[in-house]
Amino acid sequence: MIDITSSGAERIAWAARSMPVLRKISERLSTEGSLAGLRVGISLVLEPKTANLVLALRDAGAEVVVHCGASSTDQNVVEALRGMGFRVFADSSASDAEDVQLAREFLETGLDILVDDGASVTRLAHREYPELVAKMIGAAEETTSGVRPLKVMHEEGALRLPVIAVNDSAAKYLFDNIYGTGQSCVLAFLDITNLQLAGRHVVVVGYGWVGMGVARFAAALGARVIVSEIDPIRALRAMHDGYEVMAFREAAPRAEVVFSATGLADAVTEEHVEALPDGAFLCTAGGGAFEMPMEYLYGLGRSRSVRPAVDAYTTRGGRTVHVISDGDCLNCADAEGNPIEVMDLSLSLQALAVERLAHEAADWEPGVYDLPVDIENEVARIRLEAAGGSLEPLTDRQREAARAW
Amino acid sequence: MIDITSSGAERIAWAARSMPVLRKISERLSTEGSLAGLRVGISLVLEPKTANLVLALRDAGAEVVVHCGASSTDQNVVEALRGMGFRVFADSSASDAEDVQLAREFLETGLDILVDDGASVTRLAHREYPELVAKMIGAAEETTSGVRPLKVMHEEGALRLPVIAVNDSAAKYLFDNIYGTGQSCVLAFLDITNLQLAGRHVVVVGYGWVGMGVARFAAALGARVIVSEIDPIRALRAMHDGYEVMAFREAAPRAEVVFSATGLADAVTEEHVEALPDGAFLCTAGGGAFEMPMEYLYGLGRSRSVRPAVDAYTTRGGRTVHVISDGDCLNCADAEGNPIEVMDLSLSLQALAVERLAHEAADWEPGVYDLPVDIENEVARIRLEAAGGSLEPLTDRQREAARAW
Amino acid sequence: MIDITSSGAERIAWAARSMPVLRKISERLSTEGSLAGLRVGISLVLEPKTANLVLALRDAGAEVVVHCGASSTDQNVVEALRGMGFRVFADSSASDAEDVQLAREFLETGLDILVDDGASVTRLAHREYPELVAKMIGAAEETTSGVRPLKVMHEEGALRLPVIAVNDSAAKYLFDNIYGTGQSCVLAFLDITNLQLAGRHVVVVGYGWVGMGVARFAAALGARVIVSEIDPIRALRAMHDGYEVMAFREAAPRAEVVFSATGLADAVTEEHVEALPDGAFLCTAGGGAFEMPMEYLYGLGRSRSVRPAVDAYTTRGGRTVHVISDGDCLNCADAEGNPIEVMDLSLSLQALAVERLAHEAADWEPGVYDLPVDIENEVARIRLEAAGGSLEPLTDRQREAARAW
Amino acid sequence: MIDITSSGAERIAWAARSMPVLRKISERLSTEGSLAGLRVGISLVLEPKTANLVLALRDAGAEVVVHCGASSTDQNVVEALRGMGFRVFADSSASDAEDVQLAREFLETGLDILVDDGASVTRLAHREYPELVAKMIGAAEETTSGVRPLKVMHEEGALRLPVIAVNDSAAKYLFDNIYGTGQSCVLAFLDITNLQLAGRHVVVVGYGWVGMGVARFAAALGARVIVSEIDPIRALRAMHDGYEVMAFREAAPRAEVVFSATGLADAVTEEHVEALPDGAFLCTAGGGAFEMPMEYLYGLGRSRSVRPAVDAYTTRGGRTVHVISDGDCLNCADAEGNPIEVMDLSLSLQALAVERLAHEAADWEPGVYDLPVDIENEVARIRLEAAGGSLEPLTDRQREAARAW
Repeated sequence: MIDITSSGAERIAWAARSMPVLRKISERLSTEGSLAGLRVGISLVLEPKTANLVLALRDAGAEVVVHCGASSTDQNVVEALRGMGFRVFADSSASDAEDVQLAREFLETGLDILVDDGASVTRLAHREYPELVAKMIGAAEETTSGVRPLKVMHEEGALRLPVIAVNDSAAKYLFDNIYGTGQSCVLAFLDITNLQLAGRHVVVVGYGWVGMGVARFAAALGARVIVSEIDPIRALRAMHDGYEVMAFREAAPRAEVVFSATGLADAVTEEHVEALPDGAFLCTAGGGAFEMPMEYLYGLGRSRSVRPAVDAYTTRGGRTVHVISDGDCLNCADAEGNPIEVMDLSLSLQALAVERLAHEAADWEPGVYDLPVDIENEVARIRLEAAGGSLEPLTDRQREAARAW
Repeated sequence: MIDITSSGAERIAWAARSMPVLRKISERLSTEGSLAGLRVGISLVLEPKTANLVLALRDAGAEVVVHCGASSTDQNVVEALRGMGFRVFADSSASDAEDVQLAREFLETGLDILVDDGASVTRLAHREYPELVAKMIGAAEETTSGVRPLKVMHEEGALRLPVIAVNDSAAKYLFDNIYGTGQSCVLAFLDITNLQLAGRHVVVVGYGWVGMGVARFAAALGARVIVSEIDPIRALRAMHDGYEVMAFREAAPRAEVVFSATGLADAVTEEHVEALPDGAFLCTAGGGAFEMPMEYLYGLGRSRSVRPAVDAYTTRGGRTVHVISDGDCLNCADAEGNPIEVMDLSLSLQALAVERLAHEAADWEPGVYDLPVDIENEVARIRLEAAGGSLEPLTDRQREAARAW
Repeated sequence: MIDITSSGAERIAWAARSMPVLRKISERLSTEGSLAGLRVGISLVLEPKTANLVLALRDAGAEVVVHCGASSTDQNVVEALRGMGFRVFADSSASDAEDVQLAREFLETGLDILVDDGASVTRLAHREYPELVAKMIGAAEETTSGVRPLKVMHEEGALRLPVIAVNDSAAKYLFDNIYGTGQSCVLAFLDITNLQLAGRHVVVVGYGWVGMGVARFAAALGARVIVSEIDPIRALRAMHDGYEVMAFREAAPRAEVVFSATGLADAVTEEHVEALPDGAFLCTAGGGAFEMPMEYLYGLGRSRSVRPAVDAYTTRGGRTVHVISDGDCLNCADAEGNPIEVMDLSLSLQALAVERLAHEAADWEPGVYDLPVDIENEVARIRLEAAGGSLEPLTDRQREAARAW
Repeated sequence: MIDITSSGAERIAWAARSMPVLRKISERLSTEGSLAGLRVGISLVLEPKTANLVLALRDAGAEVVVHCGASSTDQNVVEALRGMGFRVFADSSASDAEDVQLAREFLETGLDILVDDGASVTRLAHREYPELVAKMIGAAEETTSGVRPLKVMHEEGALRLPVIAVNDSAAKYLFDNIYGTGQSCVLAFLDITNLQLAGRHVVVVGYGWVGMGVARFAAALGARVIVSEIDPIRALRAMHDGYEVMAFREAAPRAEVVFSATGLADAVTEEHVEALPDGAFLCTAGGGAFEMPMEYLYGLGRSRSVRPAVDAYTTRGGRTVHVISDGDCLNCADAEGNPIEVMDLSLSLQALAVERLAHEAADWEPGVYDLPVDIENEVARIRLEAAGGSLEPLTDRQREAARAW
């Protein structure tokens, strides 16, 4: 168990040891001083790895301000960053109203570039601070659940900024989503409950990158995995990967553990809840409480806290259902989040996205942009080499052959 | 062991049993008679599964003519199709020159729609029969190695037809490439050699869909897999999947078995060959002999056939290297090819691509088209249901939630 | 596909290439001439690997005579061995009666040492040739299904020979049963049917070493595996390994493919057969047709041969059931059997068991003996080193520490 | 993260929910009152699951006294048990000397039956309290590292008690060692370090049940696993399971993470430590600090605590080596230990072993006894059924067939 009272600074230093990619990029950025004169706002899950991005951007010359919602804030890291002189708009004990207020103050510092998570600050800015949005260069978005509303905004003509969808980069979703979130959600479940998955029926709702990772690790630990999907191609892929595939409504009576990995609201409904077997667990992997029917659950009457991060509810049918972390992202809320090396990739992509925005986005049209391919290739190459791997070069002869018909 | 003298008709019937998707689509097409009046040319690996596509298109009203190169032709199937009255331009004992002649005769029948493999007939038609190309409605292409030159042709303004890149459909590449080709190449190796992979170092060159499948099945059978890549993202993915990743030139001295899964010419060079350990095996997975340095090998002096489909060469360094199937696609040349269910998917996509071309392509511009998403969804859904699976429906509430920002 | 008309001698030489353990042992034995003056009878599945044991024992000075039942005989190997001057009592086209006669002639040569499979010759000798048994030094038994009756005979006072239970050695059952038979049965199924296992429910009856191997490889290929057991510990192990565990009678309605891996008579009964879904497959892995209700099946009326090695029966309930290889061992009957490296281990154990019997068994009491531990360690060590592995030595300090209390 | 300040009683109740086997056995024992009048001493890792064994034995009529060494004691559980009226000889802050004193006081209560872990109390009793040993009925031993010295004592004629080696039962070692300890050690490493294993070289020293579990879970999480063994059969098994196998001394320069899973003193030596790469981690899986060269490490000069449970040492060669939990069992010291369901099996075996000792051991000779097979079968059967599984019954016909020869 991690003793979360250990000092924030020590934990930031620990993370730094295993972030070779960010270290290498930071060395170049700080030599070049490429971000001098810019104010960059970081609104990401606030834990030791993120703090290293903050430090890297500062070393590159930027003024960095930091924001985070209460449920994703590690107060030790807040203290550590403040101790280093950063302005941090985050408080792990803030109420919902206080959280919005903190986001407003963060925006009011006047950002040039924003790194956002779930597009929540971007959306707030568009709703309440159009004049500040007008002055911004651009933003970078970290998650699937943030990219979706940004695209809707753009289709509806409401988006006023160029936003790099860092999440949609293969270097992000492959490693962060499959290996990072997938692994850390399964481990968080084991950690929180002290149970094993062997011999249990686990229903994974959604077979995107996160669901794929959850299914793989759960199966490796002996679970009998059932996948539920709305998309036939993904469903078929799950079947070929060796899982039972069935509609969640059919699978629910066997679902001893549910991981919702859809990133979509209402993935789990009251009908599903009422069909679960006695003692079942509901967990959100990667997304947020919006995937769970929390209103319905709260309406069931008093829950009992049976264990840290585990509440028990009694369904209409008289069965017990356990909800982890109030339906919130399992791995964000209850552990140190993604493994350090995974965040090294994601945060390095963010660092380079910020650099690219700083240098080029001044004349980009508003819209949702792919992360440039050269950035993800650079990050992947540094990571591979740091782990002792090497690439085969493409020969001229192969290059020519590929052009012949 | 399959007794390949067993009757072609019997083997076609056997395949039909396990092709529920094509069966279901064929029922609709034949009721509608949608292809009446069209001449459709099928130029695919000619084995029992393909014969079922031929039958399905005929039942839909088309006149179907068939072509195949010698190395991919199963003569029993040729006889069986001829026995049912089809014109078949294929001979498993044809020379290279005879093969080209067969392709010409096939084209000269005057096709409306062509289903091609490797774009070889499409290219021949563009080179030698521009007037016939002008009369064609369109084509559908089955493989990665065919889509690549078609795109080059289109960039260079040389392509005169709309071509549906069936290969680029998720319903094709996920199942055919990863599960089909990946599995059947590994099994063909075991079958041909009677060896095991456990305890052997296997180098997989190329970590695309085919390479991913080969690596997965080889590892499941106990091989210690090393992946070589030219692309950093793919390389990093291989590393996260648990494989050693290194440049082929570095890995070659340990490469007891090499699977080239690049689809690119010259993936394996003479330098690689000379670095292999004594007794190594060279196999091409999914692609063709162009991936192997066959000229160099032939220049090494007389090879010895040490076993059906296995030739031994003595390298300059005096070591023995075994080449499977003269460097040609391991699973095409030496076994019955992909599992029936996998081809059921691919050939069903082809059937629907032909239907779509027939109904709509008359006014499409020349170019390389994605397979329409509704086609791949329909195929995947039928397959899933045939295997007893079911899909969770998307609710209105979820649909709305996905549009909110 | 293996061309079984390729010459026996060539295939024996091919196997020899990948049998480093037997080669190394044979070098020592032939230098020492340790078996001079003895007549050794080999009654094992007669294929190229076995032929190499025959050669090794001859080189060690023994006169070797060979026997095999029709269904396990590769006639090319018979011809090849005869061409080298061996007496071979085997004919792949023999009737059951002729097979018994061949076994009698084999015994009548007057054996000093017998290497047996399934204890069939040992039992025949005890029933019909007590005077020849009295002159024998001992025997070595290859399989689980042979060791069981030998132990019963010994309990009942009927066994007159010392028999080394080579099968019960970890070096045999771990590698031959899990990895060899497990892998080759799954591959033989795919090869015979051209189907895939992904998406199919596979029931493995019996979770001993063979069943464990079958389940592992089937799952790796995407099957949804259900294990049936009579023993609670094995059943629980299967559950922890991630499989569904249920009584075969409950699982039968979902059993698209059945692998019987029990080594026990009547593992599959008529009740099971009548509960199978339409189109199901019945296969025996490792054992013999005695596991299957062949009488019941034959009584169902005329079967149809739908494919080489596959017969279809119509059950009372009107469903089709496919039986592979007449219920006989899937991998023995339809492919080249276990991988060469696996048989290298088993046959090397046999070679050393014969040597040990020759030197020491003259004064052993009748009974079933474990293979001496030093033999299995020697074989394992040579194999490991041949594959490039190495062992950590036990230090004196560790040895002392292990004796302290 | 588990908040270890949450109440001991709550955590005991949580564990009870997932211990169906102990619950069922406890119901029978308490109805029968089978342990009335006996004093039973429990000396096991003192955490919530163990507390449930204490409660079950009390309900069966025994007077239960409890002991545990400081490093394995969860003080909240101590308080909770004391609150229920138990005598508990354990203090998580005790010094080594105080620990021995607590063990003496525990023994001086005058035990009829002892449940021991590592044989430490049994050995102390034989050394210092022969008169109390003479009055005892017997003991049950939980671990591999305890059974070994007991067997040595028995060989040397020093053992004065019948001891049931619960550890040597398949129902214990399969599930507790492979699945329980294997899984929890890998997870504890990830938890303590916040790192991932993907892309790292992990050396597993010892391929017994624990090592097998560690290797399997590490590989499933993407590690490249190298196994070191002293035994050739185990080494070969590891090779067939797909791992690199080499002597630890050869593998050490690549060993980014070392899991020692030998149960043997001095498994890791100073030579190994000096060969490790910079930043390597040393962990003990299942055993204790005796596997690690702690004296050598302490002699290297001041270690730095870089993170809770992680100390960094500078080797003679100037490299950093991280030691987890002072070399002590990774999963005991830093997490809640084995999953609840795994301990449900082990502790149920203990409950039945105590019952068997109580009823029958009065006239057993001193010695190390196997756990009776009927006990492990009963436990496995209850567990399987609790998870919804079922067993196929053995038919009379199969039973007869198994006796024929």
